[in-house]
Amino acid sequence: MTDPLAGRVLRGDRRAVARAITRVENGDDSTDLLNGIGKSLGRAFILGLTGPPGTGKSTLVDRIIAQYRGRKMKVGVIAVDPTSPITGGALLGDRVRMAQHTLDSGVFIRSMASRGWSGGLSGAVSEAIQILDAAGMEVVMIETVGIGQSDIEIMKIAHAVMVVTMPGLGDDVQVSKAGLMEIGDIYAVNKSDLPGADAMVVNLLSMVRDMKGRSPPVLKVSALKGEGVDRLFDAVEAIRGRFLSPAGEEMRLRSVRGMIVELAKKKLLSEFEGRAFARSVEVARKVADHKMSYEEAAERLVDG
Amino acid sequence: MTDPLAGRVLRGDRRAVARAITRVENGDDSTDLLNGIGKSLGRAFILGLTGPPGTGKSTLVDRIIAQYRGRKMKVGVIAVDPTSPITGGALLGDRVRMAQHTLDSGVFIRSMASRGWSGGLSGAVSEAIQILDAAGMEVVMIETVGIGQSDIEIMKIAHAVMVVTMPGLGDDVQVSKAGLMEIGDIYAVNKSDLPGADAMVVNLLSMVRDMKGRSPPVLKVSALKGEGVDRLFDAVEAIRGRFLSPAGEEMRLRSVRGMIVELAKKKLLSEFEGRAFARSVEVARKVADHKMSYEEAAERLVDG
Repeated sequence: MTDPLAGRVLRGDRRAVARAITRVENGDDSTDLLNGIGKSLGRAFILGLTGPPGTGKSTLVDRIIAQYRGRKMKVGVIAVDPTSPITGGALLGDRVRMAQHTLDSGVFIRSMASRGWSGGLSGAVSEAIQILDAAGMEVVMIETVGIGQSDIEIMKIAHAVMVVTMPGLGDDVQVSKAGLMEIGDIYAVNKSDLPGADAMVVNLLSMVRDMKGRSPPVLKVSALKGEGVDRLFDAVEAIRGRFLSPAGEEMRLRSVRGMIVELAKKKLLSEFEGRAFARSVEVARKVADHKMSYEEAAERLVDG
Repeated sequence: MTDPLAGRVLRGDRRAVARAITRVENGDDSTDLLNGIGKSLGRAFILGLTGPPGTGKSTLVDRIIAQYRGRKMKVGVIAVDPTSPITGGALLGDRVRMAQHTLDSGVFIRSMASRGWSGGLSGAVSEAIQILDAAGMEVVMIETVGIGQSDIEIMKIAHAVMVVTMPGLGDDVQVSKAGLMEIGDIYAVNKSDLPGADAMVVNLLSMVRDMKGRSPPVLKVSALKGEGVDRLFDAVEAIRGRFLSPAGEEMRLRSVRGMIVELAKKKLLSEFEGRAFARSVEVARKVADHKMSYEEAAERLVDG
């Protein structure tokens, strides 16, 4: 049976979209809803933005929204907060900066906590993308703080990934260790009026060119001043152009696959937690009494 | 067959400990090593410290190390970096602050990346704790930045959790949303010379007392100035006293169970990734062609 919410989402009803995302975020049963929109997916271009805190990702998102709105395109944004709003002053401030778009009916912005997921995966992010896609958003941006494996996981479901960085953030080795060198399709050196921007571009260029023949663009931008935004946007649009062409099939498949794998892991862990609880108490006692190793105990739980 | 490294770890050989942790961190096969130390575990008291970035956790760890060293006790510290060293200036600075202890043979400090884990779990943290435990550390501290589910997961294997916060970090709702209100056994309001410290203590007290009859202490401290450290340390020692008593059995079992569950999830996900790859390509195509829903595809992978 199809959830009536599905029909409303498909008609682009904003309140229905909000309610649908809340439902998946809360972990309520959304099978009917998701099945109801399932045939209408795959049209939105998913752009991931990730990078360290403080690099100005939200301001950049804001600029990109404005570019798309200038072309009358509908845009959805999911900002994945690193859980803890304790840390949140800056993050909430970022949200506020995007507020100018919240009255625009062609833009749907949603903050989602990364809390609540288990498995390093982004709880309901892939479902929320599906909902925005079904609601007719032509572009869906996902913004994450690139400080954890989960952010890198999220980026697997994007069609294009923009890594946002800025001058003065640690040395090359640190940058390359962060796992961000492998995942970017575009590198933005934001706050490019700060000293060291050119050096950072040079370093990034040499690092990203090391990776298997790819040479993603590395572009200076000042999101706050609006400088370099056009060129950055052109780089995004070049990728979106590929996405819309027959050659985009592979990008589409990779993203779909990422979403399925994510959903599957979530199911796997949730099933595991359900069935392993009682057993874990039992094996823990054996381990504590040195009658079983941790490894063996873990294997028993897995085989469970 | 027992790994010769196990014997050296059990004798407290620092280089062997370092090498053993590197091995588990790299994901190399460590079954023999872990089995070799398996019978000698469960003695270390595991103290977790978590809280937002910038709250001075490392300085506090430093102070606690000094207290234990004053009592000639052996201390291990695992500082879990939130992956991205891009963010890392402050974090690396923190490590440096602990450096005064690195020449002390009674202290073993190790930074571990949270990167590399899959499943939101702390890759090799529980194995590293086992190694430090086996090497005779009487206290093992785990320091994490409390901004993700994975940090909260890590804290499940601690015998006691200290949540470190500071004045001026967002309002009550934000604090309580962060999931840190449920997990603390001790709350430290660090940088207590900043304005708002008393108000924060009052707020925290009312919040943590809401939780099922517990009333964990909420203590002001200035780790940098050394003020309030004694009282905070007493609070830790009160819990360690319980841990060492017969009543500590439950704490021990809970921690062992947390470690086993963590290991099991890691095995589960790694098996899944191994077997699901080929299948995921196949189902992704069906989903992209609207012949299968995401849900259904994910279930096929799980059952796969």
